[in-house]
Amino acid sequence: MEADHIALNPSPDNAIAWHAKQLWLLDQRKLPASAEYLELRSAEATADAIREMVVRGAPAIGITAAYGVVLAARTAYAAAGSGWKSAIQLDLGRLRDSRPTAVNLFWALDRMRGLIDSLDDEANPEPQLLQEAEQIHAEDVAANRCMGELGAALIDGPTGVITHCNAGALATGGYGTALGVIRNAHAAGRINKVYADETRPWLQGARLTAWELLADAIPVTLLADGAAANRMAQGGVGWIIVGSDRIAANGDVANKIGTFSLAVVAKYHGVKVMVVAPTSTIDMQVASGKEIPIEVRGGDELLCCGAQRIAAEGAEVWNPVFDVTPAELVDAIVTEKGVVLSPNVEKMRQLMES
Amino acid sequence: MEADHIALNPSPDNAIAWHAKQLWLLDQRKLPASAEYLELRSAEATADAIREMVVRGAPAIGITAAYGVVLAARTAYAAAGSGWKSAIQLDLGRLRDSRPTAVNLFWALDRMRGLIDSLDDEANPEPQLLQEAEQIHAEDVAANRCMGELGAALIDGPTGVITHCNAGALATGGYGTALGVIRNAHAAGRINKVYADETRPWLQGARLTAWELLADAIPVTLLADGAAANRMAQGGVGWIIVGSDRIAANGDVANKIGTFSLAVVAKYHGVKVMVVAPTSTIDMQVASGKEIPIEVRGGDELLCCGAQRIAAEGAEVWNPVFDVTPAELVDAIVTEKGVVLSPNVEKMRQLMES
Repeated sequence: MEADHIALNPSPDNAIAWHAKQLWLLDQRKLPASAEYLELRSAEATADAIREMVVRGAPAIGITAAYGVVLAARTAYAAAGSGWKSAIQLDLGRLRDSRPTAVNLFWALDRMRGLIDSLDDEANPEPQLLQEAEQIHAEDVAANRCMGELGAALIDGPTGVITHCNAGALATGGYGTALGVIRNAHAAGRINKVYADETRPWLQGARLTAWELLADAIPVTLLADGAAANRMAQGGVGWIIVGSDRIAANGDVANKIGTFSLAVVAKYHGVKVMVVAPTSTIDMQVASGKEIPIEVRGGDELLCCGAQRIAAEGAEVWNPVFDVTPAELVDAIVTEKGVVLSPNVEKMRQLMES
Repeated sequence: MEADHIALNPSPDNAIAWHAKQLWLLDQRKLPASAEYLELRSAEATADAIREMVVRGAPAIGITAAYGVVLAARTAYAAAGSGWKSAIQLDLGRLRDSRPTAVNLFWALDRMRGLIDSLDDEANPEPQLLQEAEQIHAEDVAANRCMGELGAALIDGPTGVITHCNAGALATGGYGTALGVIRNAHAAGRINKVYADETRPWLQGARLTAWELLADAIPVTLLADGAAANRMAQGGVGWIIVGSDRIAANGDVANKIGTFSLAVVAKYHGVKVMVVAPTSTIDMQVASGKEIPIEVRGGDELLCCGAQRIAAEGAEVWNPVFDVTPAELVDAIVTEKGVVLSPNVEKMRQLMES
């Protein structure tokens, strides 16, 4: 374990690592106070880690689940030999049930399942499944670099931008979606100021985005989520740049709770809204955002701060952790296959068929 | 001290108390975990208590400052006798400088100063100043009861409402402005569900509004500030009901940071916006919200949660604690002198001249 810890270098681009034949996740619940890896030796432990948000962010969840399938196959082959394809089903279900909203999870599991179906019953499936998981991981990083270029090109800067939650290296295989665009545009001088919403209740902005950007020496200014409107009213903000957990066939965007407010307020101020997500986030099976399942998490995320109780006993909580921004409020969806301006069902279909 | 503590009964309607010849404030920094009074024996201590948010809420700050003038007069008369009117000036300045945005502070100090100017140099001013401070306190409670009636009459319920920050008994002399309307309308069956934004960064909603409403057996459901848009999209919310710290001559409303976002999102969803504030909150000397000074507080309110550091070292913060909602987004301003629908400069002038 010690040796493993030494070999793993905690950084935003190394939050998901296949190392010493196991899956290692940088525990995002503990950032930035401490940067510790959890070693996962089974698909069940991997599903628990996704549910408990050791790892979060739609693309990162998909990549983690793909590695989880490798661990599931190892377990199934050791236990059942040539019967591994039936033995693996329980673990595939556990991974699928870990979180409901981000479609990348199901996309990655379906891709791994496709390979499983094509494999020989007799041979050990681990090497080919690991190769596929590593391919999914590598493709995600490449997609992020591509989106960074495409998104930055839309920014007629220099201007300030506001991002919400963490759509960075920590939320993906590396480099990030929204933060990939911000990295590219900041380096190119198109962005002169980055504001990050703290993003209640889980504080991804304050805890993760600030840590990740500062690790790249990109200055970041935190805002209370409610302060974004005041900030836009002051001027100097050209774009809202966010990621997504699922994009419907009509261009409606599910993303971290608070994104919808931010987009409505942006429209009021004439600030543009850019959503940056790989095509693995687009779900052409759901016609509109109304059909996207929105996860509601426990109330303790609002009732408490760490161990400290905030609210009076007896207070109820409604804690949906995603919302849906209607396509009419989105100026651009940036994917690795291209940019869709003012998205609608026809444009989304064209993108996916291109 | 023990006897004083026993005599003071901590409750939302007893947050500001003149007791045993001193000013007592329920320490709102510690609610709801503990309900403790601070005893204030000087104007300087009173100004510090306002600055440090032992007491907060525009009307409550004004009432507290009025009692602070009584303490200032006691000190000045003891020290300077017939020279007390010049001796009191330093303390009046301290009270005036305690917080910049809520105009009720300046309104109350001006009213006390008017009485000071009319008083005899020779006599002890404390009795008459105390009578005036108690009158300001009593008038505020009466105004809140009146506004509760007027505001509730606007609600064609039963419907759900969302409130932001704490505009309750704790923010006033008692009963509350926005929460006064909610109390009245809930009792009348016009409100069937109360949602409270947690209200970052100071968490007035989670800490104070939940405690205050539950003390009155009014069920309350907390929302992350960013979840209000999602909640409105679900339907069942008829009104946003908030207080104000200063209303400009044109009807622009300064209130707790996040109110502007809430109003923009309400307009998008066809939800109405009600601002409840006594006429002591209306400042006809500022033409529009652009002229209202907006307090910016320290970054620790976002960087830390209690003693716990949240954000990475090096993160910057912009922490304005109020914002300005343009009059165009306000459906009704409810005052003790009457209701102004779709406020503008003419209607506001008519109200103030009525």
